[in-house]
This record gives sequence, structure tokens and C-alpha cells, in this order.
Amino acid sequence: MHSLQPVFVPQSVAIIGASSDPDRIGGRLLRFLLEAKFEGAIYPINKSGATEIQGLPAYGSVLDIPGSVDQAVVVVPAPGVESAVRESIAKGVRCVVVLTSGFAEMGDEGREAQDKLKAMCRDAGVRMLGPNSLGLLNVETRYFATFSTALYGLQPRSGSISLATQSGAFGSCAYGMATLRGLGLSKIIATGNEADIDVAECIDYLAEDPETKVICAALESCRDGQRLRAALLKAAAAGKPVLVMKVGRTELGAAAASTHTGSLAGNDAVFDVVFQECGAYRPNSIEEMLDIAYYCTVTGRLPPNQAIGIITGSGGIGVLMADHAGDLGLSMPALTPDAVAASKALLPFAVAANPLDMTAQVTSLPDGVPRTIEIMMAHGDYGTVFAYLAHSGLAPARFASTIDRLAELRIQYPHQDLVLVMLSSPESNEKLEAIGIPVFADPTRAMVAMGAAARMADRRNNLYTLPGTQAKVSALKDVGTEVAAKNVLKMAGLSVLPEQVCSTSEAAVKFAAEIGFPVVAKIASADILHKTEMGGVLLNLQDAAAVKIAFDTLISRAQLHVPTARLDGVLITPMVKGGVETILGVQVDPTFGPMILYGAGGTAVELFRDVALASAPLTTLRAQALVNQVRSTALLRGWRGSQPADESAVIDALCRLSEFAMAHADQLQSIDINPMLVQQKGAVCLDAVITLQADL
Amino acid sequence: MHSLQPVFVPQSVAIIGASSDPDRIGGRLLRFLLEAKFEGAIYPINKSGATEIQGLPAYGSVLDIPGSVDQAVVVVPAPGVESAVRESIAKGVRCVVVLTSGFAEMGDEGREAQDKLKAMCRDAGVRMLGPNSLGLLNVETRYFATFSTALYGLQPRSGSISLATQSGAFGSCAYGMATLRGLGLSKIIATGNEADIDVAECIDYLAEDPETKVICAALESCRDGQRLRAALLKAAAAGKPVLVMKVGRTELGAAAASTHTGSLAGNDAVFDVVFQECGAYRPNSIEEMLDIAYYCTVTGRLPPNQAIGIITGSGGIGVLMADHAGDLGLSMPALTPDAVAASKALLPFAVAANPLDMTAQVTSLPDGVPRTIEIMMAHGDYGTVFAYLAHSGLAPARFASTIDRLAELRIQYPHQDLVLVMLSSPESNEKLEAIGIPVFADPTRAMVAMGAAARMADRRNNLYTLPGTQAKVSALKDVGTEVAAKNVLKMAGLSVLPEQVCSTSEAAVKFAAEIGFPVVAKIASADILHKTEMGGVLLNLQDAAAVKIAFDTLISRAQLHVPTARLDGVLITPMVKGGVETILGVQVDPTFGPMILYGAGGTAVELFRDVALASAPLTTLRAQALVNQVRSTALLRGWRGSQPADESAVIDALCRLSEFAMAHADQLQSIDINPMLVQQKGAVCLDAVITLQADL
Repeated sequence: MHSLQPVFVPQSVAIIGASSDPDRIGGRLLRFLLEAKFEGAIYPINKSGATEIQGLPAYGSVLDIPGSVDQAVVVVPAPGVESAVRESIAKGVRCVVVLTSGFAEMGDEGREAQDKLKAMCRDAGVRMLGPNSLGLLNVETRYFATFSTALYGLQPRSGSISLATQSGAFGSCAYGMATLRGLGLSKIIATGNEADIDVAECIDYLAEDPETKVICAALESCRDGQRLRAALLKAAAAGKPVLVMKVGRTELGAAAASTHTGSLAGNDAVFDVVFQECGAYRPNSIEEMLDIAYYCTVTGRLPPNQAIGIITGSGGIGVLMADHAGDLGLSMPALTPDAVAASKALLPFAVAANPLDMTAQVTSLPDGVPRTIEIMMAHGDYGTVFAYLAHSGLAPARFASTIDRLAELRIQYPHQDLVLVMLSSPESNEKLEAIGIPVFADPTRAMVAMGAAARMADRRNNLYTLPGTQAKVSALKDVGTEVAAKNVLKMAGLSVLPEQVCSTSEAAVKFAAEIGFPVVAKIASADILHKTEMGGVLLNLQDAAAVKIAFDTLISRAQLHVPTARLDGVLITPMVKGGVETILGVQVDPTFGPMILYGAGGTAVELFRDVALASAPLTTLRAQALVNQVRSTALLRGWRGSQPADESAVIDALCRLSEFAMAHADQLQSIDINPMLVQQKGAVCLDAVITLQADL
Repeated sequence: MHSLQPVFVPQSVAIIGASSDPDRIGGRLLRFLLEAKFEGAIYPINKSGATEIQGLPAYGSVLDIPGSVDQAVVVVPAPGVESAVRESIAKGVRCVVVLTSGFAEMGDEGREAQDKLKAMCRDAGVRMLGPNSLGLLNVETRYFATFSTALYGLQPRSGSISLATQSGAFGSCAYGMATLRGLGLSKIIATGNEADIDVAECIDYLAEDPETKVICAALESCRDGQRLRAALLKAAAAGKPVLVMKVGRTELGAAAASTHTGSLAGNDAVFDVVFQECGAYRPNSIEEMLDIAYYCTVTGRLPPNQAIGIITGSGGIGVLMADHAGDLGLSMPALTPDAVAASKALLPFAVAANPLDMTAQVTSLPDGVPRTIEIMMAHGDYGTVFAYLAHSGLAPARFASTIDRLAELRIQYPHQDLVLVMLSSPESNEKLEAIGIPVFADPTRAMVAMGAAARMADRRNNLYTLPGTQAKVSALKDVGTEVAAKNVLKMAGLSVLPEQVCSTSEAAVKFAAEIGFPVVAKIASADILHKTEMGGVLLNLQDAAAVKIAFDTLISRAQLHVPTARLDGVLITPMVKGGVETILGVQVDPTFGPMILYGAGGTAVELFRDVALASAPLTTLRAQALVNQVRSTALLRGWRGSQPADESAVIDALCRLSEFAMAHADQLQSIDINPMLVQQKGAVCLDAVITLQADL
């Protein structure tokens, strides 16, 4: 049994702080439970000595309850929470739900009190929701443990969409919008301050909850990245769509988030990547989230493929929908010749293409619409067929026979989805939804919902794999100089140029001859960071004489410009030309661990942020996907007729770097390889900077 | 009087093809007019000899009508249209509305028939809507001249939003969606094949129509760019928001558009620029268009500035809204110290910031919400204040006193707008809208609508100016060679390098000495286009000897590799180094005339399409705005510590190029200057290609 089972499905509940006044928080909570007709035992607790509250026998303490209690819901003011939780633990509850606010969100003192609650629960093996939670709803079992006024007048409809959210306000808003449009809900939970239970764990629960078919979630922050990844992957494996909103996305939003929660909003780009890699989708708005959830619950699955067919009764809307399909990366394969012939036979005036424009002629043909839809479903490989039917659904009586025919088509073509776009009545919609056909009024929203679901399906073809436990590795140290950093890269299996710090000009000439001319000479001193500025780098030295002069020049320049510097000598390394500059990086995210960054093309990285990010560890496939995301990768592939560079060497370097980063995740802060020069054969790291966590 | 007045506001109408069967097209049209209680005279015309149709006296021909007729609506089958139009003209109507299809949209034969109708009307001075139009609605005068089945059961509410659309399907869809959500409409017109009246002219009419406050439009193509610009600018000058959708935006969409209309979808990016320059906004969906229209009709204006304040009862939604504000380029100035103090005094637990989180504490304070809103309106310079109030609007009775207080605030702070985001009831909404407060359920949609209106307001600070008539200029000819093209640029006032085609090595050396070493030598021949490939360019020639050798080398290479080429000699020009590469271009759009293109940074142009487009003629201000849009412009401004390049020389070159393009718009097809090298002082065009329309 999942450890959150007593949270979502308690058999009995004590309301600590229950009130007789159904408008006060503790009374409202009880009132909602009673009105919902929760079938488990309900025990109101109030220190006032009342023996009856809202018609139920009341107790002064949870310890006075005769039977056993699964869950205690705490709504007493903050100073009374600690003893309420202590008594609940003593009573043997399996879970406490703390709705009271005034804890970590209020500053250090509140955080201390919260930590104490957390420790008490942990030591007793009791799970805690909150504090500062808006509670939860289990629509099937009619367990409504919340005081949200959203329940005044907005009764939930039972269904298969569940929602886990940190912010109670977000939960209320989504609940209200979903309920007003008639979406069926299963479980809603607000995790609040997340002292114990967090959104990730709720997703984990919902991934195995048989009543939940679609998971919606909303985060402002995340304290355990690996748990979130694992939960998202579990939901993906269970075939459940996951729609996760993270607020604090932009600079203004992140500023707003940090004001109100005290928790950092985190690196938003990393969240984005993690959601993608773990097969989830990030909607842009609550309405979009609900649209996608609706789409997936009605079709009962993610789209079979990325190919769509569109049928309309007139051109303009078809073009609009095709525009959106283009934006969303969907494909619109042409009608097959057979389909063209069948369409022409049925409707001579139709535009037999994709979009298929039936023209007004269709209205003169019995069953013209379903017959045209059948042509599109029978031919070609459209995973999803959209039919724009204007306002047909507003006349349910006239539309009923079409619905019957569509029901037959759904059975006949079970591997394809059908979506209707039209103005409609609740009556028509209900019938259509029952046979697996979503209905949208706005063509754009229909397309966006389907596109999101298709994107999710696509992501699930190439999911992130959680790494196993990592073998212990030797510690990194002494990474502060260019030479040391490159030695680390060499250790990681990346290519660096042969180089040597030479203390005499003879040694420099000898080493240059060994590696072959031309060479580069650089002053080597831990005390000189900005070599170029003092003329400390000399390029393209063609022979022994040039190397000798360069050595003497560099030493005397250093003595002249930085007289205090302790000189190690002169570094000699081959002069390389040509190739494409790339950058590779590692950033160890405090939440999500090592992230690998890739970019190409020098200026493009800074000017266009033409870089992409992926979680370590990378597989070859995921490394290739990372490289594909960068537009400047075109420069590697034979730009303007030049020879292609060695892309496989880039993939290889990324995989080795990612492996190294995983092995040293405890110690590493970041690695910047800039540039790695990719040549026709091989790729070589010309410079690197490594930072350890200890350095910060 | 506007020439479309008889189209939108006829006093009397003849329905040519009227039918007694109210379900057939010609019957439905009449039925809708009768049901709408149009007060003007209605004359059904039918050749059948019926003397009465749907209760009205009927006639065999429009010529038999005793009184005068303003408008003839034609719904007879295509073969009968010509005589119907001829008779209508003979009767003296001022306008014919041809709803019949089967004209230009069906191919060449249909186009011929359509051209004939057009000529007949033009010669008689009669305006024509259509053919293949879905007709029009004037909601105030109850003139419903359409057979759209959207009118079954969906009766329009009178208001101030008007819609002009080419596609009837688009019009029906937008009409249905608007009416279902209760938006008030003024005029709706579908222009169909646009043989005479087009969407641009309808916008022109609506810009001066006193009942229209917001103009919505939808295009698939445009035949007269200058007319569209003029209409958009007229609406902007009248202070009316213009929301214009153009479909066929993406490759898939454009393919779909060309299938169904036969008219090319046109260069979508040019439309985008024209809409921006003329102060219109291009929504992404019909729903977004209606959201913005709703927003503007309720507030009665565009937002006073780009600064917003947000008030919420809890954090999560505030952060979401701040995210969107960031995306939309809005600003969220911090609360002033006075406002912080006032907020703390009112609600000690509130997060006194922007967003201002009132926390649940607000519920315990009488008028807490309006008092907090007042704090934000009274301090700082928030043009628009958003308040997120959860589901307050669902309880109209409890919310009534808040609405009263908000009405007072609207009067007290007339220069700011207030927007509520909450779940609500029609009753609460109506009251709020009446006092100028828009209400949205979804926080994202509220923010997107306001952001669009703010963008429109911003655009109207720097509008395009229509050019006056252009003085006749001398014709261009002979622009096929590099030298000729550069001579044209020189004529246009742009800088080019001194250069000379020298027919002897002596002349080459002499000219090189005059302009100063180092120089570049290029083979000069109209027969050799790809000079580089045959080694026809020699760089960095340092002295007379080098020039002499170069001359001989180039001539013999040319004789060897292209023996048939007619050689003009060798071109000598100074060798320039350094500076930032830019590209300048002109493209004469068949619809919108000369468009100016600017880009910088070589690779970035191709790889990132880092270019921007503007309509000619450019003012200095608009040229600067064009340059600002290009991200690689950063390279001009002292990239990575280098010296800044001469940006003013770029602006100057763009203005001169645009002026030249306007003067030669009749002849020019395109100009590509690539590169123009921008140096610390000045900018010089190194190469150019010019194409004339005659060359195509």
C-alpha cells in the first residue's frame, strides 16, 4: 500500500478545532464533510467542552475518541498546533493534515515550529500534510478536508483528473474553473509548506491510483529533484499524462515568487528540461492545463501519432487550424489518391486535400459529414482527425443521427482519434465525450490541446533514465589552473592538446620539436590570470628560433609587467587552426544534480543563447538530441559548403563529460569548456575552467 | 457620407431569389430579416410568379418594385446572377450583395463571370459585396442579410464590436463564439471574393462608424496594401482598437490557404510588420481576439501605460500573473514607500509588494479588498490594477457592496483601469462591466488581453506615415554588374569604395597609388559571375609590384578558366579590414511596396534569421527602431569591449536606401547590400546585387 493511502483515503477523521459555527474555518470544514456525506467516522474535537458539534458527538481531545482514527485534520490557531499533533500521534493516527498557517512562510520562528512538527511526525512514522495547506478532496469517497470557500456552491463532479499543488490559491482557482466547465475530478491536494509530503510524492501516489487517469500539478519550487523525476517517470510508465505548471518562470514572476514564499524559485530552465525529459508537459495557463486534461480523459490516451487530418465546411477555419498545426510541430500529410477519389465521388465540389473542405455541398447529402470523416479515417495514417462543424452541436435533435454514425466510426477505427470543433450544447457534448470524442468551441484551443498531448507522447519515446547508485570515486582537488583543469578533462576521457610547462628555452624548443610546428607559447604562472592582456600568449611559432625568442620575450614581459609573479615557465602547445568552436558545460543544480550544457559558434552562445541543457547522465541518444536542439549545430554539418566537422566526437565528449559529472556530483560546482574545437576528425578542448562546491 | 453607407445601412432591400421555404437559402435569408424585424422595406423577388412570399408582396423582377430600392441581395444560382445584377442596376440600387458562389473561387470561367459583374457595377457607380459572400449583419438597424445558419437560435446582442472578414466561415465562428459569451456586436460583414468591396474598405468604414468602438478583422490575402494601411491608420487615429487575424501564417497554413482560395497567401512576415506599423494587433486565436475586444469595449480605451499592479488573496496566482506580465513586456513597478506603509497599516500580515498579497487576513476586514485596491490606485503610477478575487463573483449578494465601492473608486481614479480575475456570475459581471471593469475567469487570459491592448497603445506612439505622391525620377537601367550596382548605391547616397576597372597593369598600378595601398584586385567581366571560384579575387596587395603581378595573374586565369569571357579588365579597390558586417536590403512587395530589411553579423542572418523588416519610407526614428529589433546590433555597440561602430551611419544608409526604393518602386524588384561594413566612422557597401522587375 502506498504510504499516502491514509492521506487520500482515510476511513476515519478527527477535526481538531471543529466549530459549531459553519462559517468559521473549523466549522466550515466540518460542514463540508457533512454535506458531502463522507461515509467514514467523523470526530469533532474542541477544547470548549461542547459534547456535540453540528450534530455529531464532540470530544475535548483526540485522545478521548473511543475508536481508532486514521487522520487528524488540525485547524486550531498556530500556538495550539504542536499539542494537537502530539496528541494525534499518541492516539495512533497515521496522518496529520495541518491547515493552520503561520509557520515557515512567516520567517525563522515559524520555521523552527514547523521543523519541530516535522521531527515529531517523522519519529513517530506519521505522515504530515502542510502546515499552511488548504487540505484535500477525494471526490469518490466524498472526503472533503478543506475550508476553501470554493466549495460554497461549486460541487465537484466525479471523474478521473487529479491535481496536486503547493499553492492553495492555485488549487482553488483550478478547482473552480474545472468544476464550472463540468470536468470530472478525482483527487485534489494542496501541499502548502511541504514539511513532509510534497507535490512529487503526491504525483507518485496518483501515478498508481486507479481512479486517476490524468495528473495535473503546480509547483513553485522543488526540494528533491530526484524524487520529482522518479514520480514523473512513474506516471509516464503508467501511461498517464502529467501536466505540470511551475510558476516563477520569468524574472518578474520569480521576483514575485521569492517575495511570497521565501523559497527560491530555482532555475526555471532546469525545470523545463526535467519536465521534458520525464515525459511531462508544462502548460502556459490553467485553462490550457484543463483543456489538455479534458482532451486526454475523453480520448483516454495520448495521440497515436503526430499526423493530423482536418475536415471543414469552409476554408478560413481550416487554414487557421493548419497554421496552429504548423506552430505545434504537427504534420499534415496529403490525402492519399484513394482518399481523393473517394472524396470526389462523394462531394464533387469539395477541395479534396488536407484540410478537406467539404463546402456547403455537404449539407445536401445525407450523412455527408460522417461519410467524409470516414474517408479520412480509412485512408492515410492520420492519428487524429479534426472536424470543424460550425454550430452543429447547438441543435442536438438534428445532430443526434450524426453522433450515432460517429459512434460507429469510433468502433470501426479504434486506433485513431476524432475531435470535433463546433459550438455545441451540453447534451451533444456529453454524448460525444461518452464515445471518446472531445469537443471544443475554439479551433485554436482544440489544436493546442491535441498538440500538447502529442508532444507528451513524443517525449515518452525517449525518456530520461534515473541513474543507479554511483561507485565512489577519488576526490578532485587542485583544479584552479588551466593545466590542472585540462588534466581533469583528460582524466574524464576528453581530448586535450599535448602541452608542457617548460622552465628553459631549450626545454621549450625540444618539446615544440616533439609535438611538431607551428606551436603556441603562453606564460605559465598561477599569479597571472589574464595572460592575453600582458602579451603573454604568442601564436603560430613556426620553428625553433621563433620558440626560443618567444620564451625569452614572455619571461621578460612577465617580469616587467607582473614583477611579483611566481613564474612556472612557458607553456608550449600545438597551434591548431580551423574547426568549429563549441562550448560544453556542467552545472550542478542544487535540486536536480549535474546538468549538461552544449552550444556552438562563439558569438551565437552569448547573443542568441543558442545553448541547450540536459540532465546527466546522457545516453548517446540523448546527447544527440541535445546537439540537435542547438541551431548553430548547422555549422558542424558543412556550413556553406565547408567540410563537415566530427559531430560524433562531440557526442562522445558530451557523454564522457556527463559520466564524469555524475561521478563527482558531490564535489563539482561547474565545468566550462570553452572552446572545444571540433575538427574534421576529433574534437579538442582548448581551455577549461572548473569550480568545486568548496570554492564557493 | 461614406460610400459603404448603403451597404451597411440600407433603407430598403430587394431579395432576388427569395423563397417561401424558410429552410432554403433564399427563404432563410428572408425569414431572418422578418424575424429580426428590420424596419426598412423588404421586397421578395422570385421569377416563379408568386405574388406573396412569407407574407410579403412578391415581384417577378426588381424592376417591378413600385418604390425605390437601396440594396439588392442576390441569392439566385450562379447562371442567373448576371441578369439579377443588371436589373438591379437598371432599377437604380446603390449596392448589390451577391451571396451566390461559383465565381473566381471555382477557376477561370468563374473569374470571368465575376469580372463581368464587377465591370457592370463599376460602370454604373454601384457598390458590390461578394460574390461568394456570407452577407452582413447590422445589429442596431436589425438588418440581417445573411443565410448563415449561425442565426438559428443565436440572436446577436447589440454592442460596439464590429467584424469584417473575408471568410464567411470565420465570420460565423467568431459571431457564434461572441454571441454565446454575450458580447455586444454592431456590424458583421463577410466580403467573400472581394470583386469590389474588400476588408480594408470595411475597416475604413468602421473607423468612422460612431456605433463601432472596436474593429475585428480577418484576412487571407490583401489586394491593395496601401488601402489596408490607410484604413488601419484611420482607425488608429480614431482611437479604435483594431484586432486583425491573418490566416495562412505558417507553411502548413499557407499551403491550406492556397488550396482553397486560389489567391496566394502572400508574405506573412510583411503583413505582420504592416499591422504593427499601423497600430493594429494580430491575435493568435478567435478567442483571444474576442478577449481583447471585450477588454477594450469594457474599459473604453487602450491601457494608459505599460505598468501594472497586481493584488491577490494568496501567492500562487500572483506569481503566475507576474510570469505573464514578464512575457508580455509589461512592467511591474515596486510599491512606493507610502503604499507599503498604507498596506501594512491596513493588513499587517500582507506581503506589501507588487504583487500585493492580502493573505486570508483580508476576509476579516470590512471592505478589505476595495481598500487595498485603493492603496494601489492612489500610489505609484499603475495604469492598470489587477485584482485576483478567487470565486467572489459567484456569490452576487455578498459581493454587491464590494462592487459599489469599486464603482466609487472608478470615479475617484478615472485615469487608471481596474481588472478583476475571478469566477463570477453573469449578474456580478454585468454590474462590473457597466462601471468599466472587465472580468476574466482565467488569470492568463486577463493578462494576455491587457498585454495586447497595451502593445497596441505602444505601437500607436510611433505610427507609419503614408507617403505623399512621389516625384517622377529617371529610370534605372543597366544594374547587372557589381560596378553598375554600386553606382546605383552611390546615386542613392550610400558610401561605396573608390574603384576603377583598369584595362592595363599600368593603369591599375596608377589607380592603386592614388587610392593608397593595400588594395584588392578583382577580375571584371559581365561573363564571370563567380569570381572567387576561379581565383578571380586577390586581396591585400601591398605595393605596385604586387598589383602588377596580380593584374597579369587575373587576366591569364580568366583566359585559362573562362576562355569565352569578354574581359573588361581588372577592378582595383582599397583593401578594408575590421568593422562589423551588416546587410541591408529592399524587397518590393507586390501588395505593400518597398520593404526595407536590415541584419547584422554574417552567420546570424542565415542561422537565426536575425533580420528585421520595415515599410519604406523610413524616418530616422523608424530606422532606429528597425536596427533595435536586430539582436546582432549588439555587435555594433562595442561587443566584448571592442570599439563601438558607427550606428548613425547605418541609420543614415537605411533612410537613404528607403528613399531611393520609394522613388524607384515601379521599377525595382530588390536590392541586396551584403555586406555593408560599419567602421568606427562611417559605413561602406562592399558588394550589392540589384534586380529590376523587368528582369523577372
